[in-house]
Amino acid sequence: MRPSTPFLAVDLERMQANIARVAEAATARGIALRPHAKTHKTIEIGRMQVAAGAHGLTVATIGEAEVFAAAGLDDLFIAYPLWIDADRAARLSHLAAAGAAISIGVDSVEAAARIARGGLAGRVSARVEVDAGHHRSGCVPTAAGDVASAAARAGIEVEGVFAFPGHAYAPEGRETAARQEAEALRVAAASMRDAGVPPQVVSGGSTPSFAAALALDSPVTELRPGVSVFGDAQQWELGSTAPEQIALTAHATVVSHAGGRLVLDAGSKVLGPDRAAWATGHGRLLDHPDARIVQLSEHHALVELPGIAPDDLPPLGSLVRAVPNHSCMAVNLVDELFVFDRADDAEPSARWRVAARGRNA
Amino acid sequence: MRPSTPFLAVDLERMQANIARVAEAATARGIALRPHAKTHKTIEIGRMQVAAGAHGLTVATIGEAEVFAAAGLDDLFIAYPLWIDADRAARLSHLAAAGAAISIGVDSVEAAARIARGGLAGRVSARVEVDAGHHRSGCVPTAAGDVASAAARAGIEVEGVFAFPGHAYAPEGRETAARQEAEALRVAAASMRDAGVPPQVVSGGSTPSFAAALALDSPVTELRPGVSVFGDAQQWELGSTAPEQIALTAHATVVSHAGGRLVLDAGSKVLGPDRAAWATGHGRLLDHPDARIVQLSEHHALVELPGIAPDDLPPLGSLVRAVPNHSCMAVNLVDELFVFDRADDAEPSARWRVAARGRNA
Repeated sequence: MRPSTPFLAVDLERMQANIARVAEAATARGIALRPHAKTHKTIEIGRMQVAAGAHGLTVATIGEAEVFAAAGLDDLFIAYPLWIDADRAARLSHLAAAGAAISIGVDSVEAAARIARGGLAGRVSARVEVDAGHHRSGCVPTAAGDVASAAARAGIEVEGVFAFPGHAYAPEGRETAARQEAEALRVAAASMRDAGVPPQVVSGGSTPSFAAALALDSPVTELRPGVSVFGDAQQWELGSTAPEQIALTAHATVVSHAGGRLVLDAGSKVLGPDRAAWATGHGRLLDHPDARIVQLSEHHALVELPGIAPDDLPPLGSLVRAVPNHSCMAVNLVDELFVFDRADDAEPSARWRVAARGRNA
Repeated sequence: MRPSTPFLAVDLERMQANIARVAEAATARGIALRPHAKTHKTIEIGRMQVAAGAHGLTVATIGEAEVFAAAGLDDLFIAYPLWIDADRAARLSHLAAAGAAISIGVDSVEAAARIARGGLAGRVSARVEVDAGHHRSGCVPTAAGDVASAAARAGIEVEGVFAFPGHAYAPEGRETAARQEAEALRVAAASMRDAGVPPQVVSGGSTPSFAAALALDSPVTELRPGVSVFGDAQQWELGSTAPEQIALTAHATVVSHAGGRLVLDAGSKVLGPDRAAWATGHGRLLDHPDARIVQLSEHHALVELPGIAPDDLPPLGSLVRAVPNHSCMAVNLVDELFVFDRADDAEPSARWRVAARGRNA
């Protein structure tokens, strides 16, 4: 049965096309794909990505790794500089003992020592994180050899190096970020070779930089796009997803015409409150490209529809499809995704549990 | 046992003091209190608020009402202009049949007709929502009589009128918003009396405007603060919560010193990505008042600590307490709150389920 609004709907046909398109583009360049599952947090979708050719999944937390590994999706890279304490060491050991192939991020000599002290040598492998210009975590590329050799000396298998070019999330930022990522990874890989720990895997992000990374002469051997599975309003505005590829929307009801605008019952608790400085609003409407969500509260979205007179607004009670700015945040707010085989189906064909929702630790 | 970071911790002593302080302030003015439970979504906290004198709770959705009513907290105002369809009518009827006293918002003649058409006359009461300057939902105050009389003619008990002064969430906005709310409610109440449907309840928001609303000569008979139960970084910066009253924090681990800053494992998926234009950052640290979260991703918070040399930063592996900008959004991201009887306790004394988390519909 069709649920009450607001709810998140997956357009299955579009999502499968997105998965196939990204897999084919990577395969055509001989680059491995390890999609970031933090976007969807859903077993069914992870399985489709692997079936389409992904050689494993990326996750952000041990909790996400536990959920996917329990479902048999157990070739996992935790793309995060984990600080290993007794609890995290025990959980990672447990995953390894169950047969999962786990790699984790490391960005300092101290963190490498913690991995060894946690008894994880021989159980998990490590990838050195380098900063490619996003300036978040990650060591400077020239330090990658130091971190890698500290890990190697402690008995930890160093599988490779990775970066996340988060600064690709900006207008005109995609090509620059992809170039900087390629250069940072090239420098880091050289630093690791000089240290006697050459990387087997050289791994890059992201959805906005994906096409540019494929077009470059880059040392990348693996890419980890996340959002591309759904698209969202940010990718629409950055030009990395066309509106007709967007596979995730919040179905919402027009509850009021207060102030001559549409008031929808989908607020920040289902769309997510993300709004980048360059975004044109708090989200879009899939069927009204000119519309903008101009104000967002927890349970209200206020929509302006340019050129439409107040009397011609979609009537009270109408259903509309809102596009979240950032699909990773929207999905993490709901317990289930409602799957529509085709966009114009009246009823969902399935409900998928967002099995790793809220698994932050 | 102390969970892995990141997790949300409640300082029980502070929260109980917050509940008591707000209840006493309202009681001293003879104003009823109906705290907004969307902030905490937690049965245990709703019970404490009622035990402290609240005469019921406010919620935002039917789903939240169902959760609290099932726990016996069944005097509920759904402060939202619901659009009644068959499913919503059935769920509200079910709540009423189980003995819950439910009032719902209405802001148009059309929505009032839907309540009646849903067979809800005699089962739920209605409160007219008016716009007090926040310009979200709500009719203009002079139209309150029209909406009220449409509802009354359809056989629906009109219990009162309400507004939400969301524009109090701005520097220097609190007194202005409280005055505009009082004036809007005064005009609306007069309009309803003129229409022969005088309001029994005249209800106002919010945490930032709470003190100003109590200090005014206002027609308000009830107030609905939400965030005051916890406080957060927004209220700290607006001046409506002192830092020593903040009862909700995200416990986080320093995972990296990349770039000479603190990188914490608490990102927007536990703190929430809210950032008002006037906020000084993406969140604060409770024990470092000068610190600011200057960059926030899903699993990383980047913190600048002015005046602290890179070598003097809290070491890798340190635990810090991050204050979310907006506690309503943070709580809605987690399944459990970890309760510490006193802030310096090593172990939580309880885990409370966020029972209404994600109940958007």
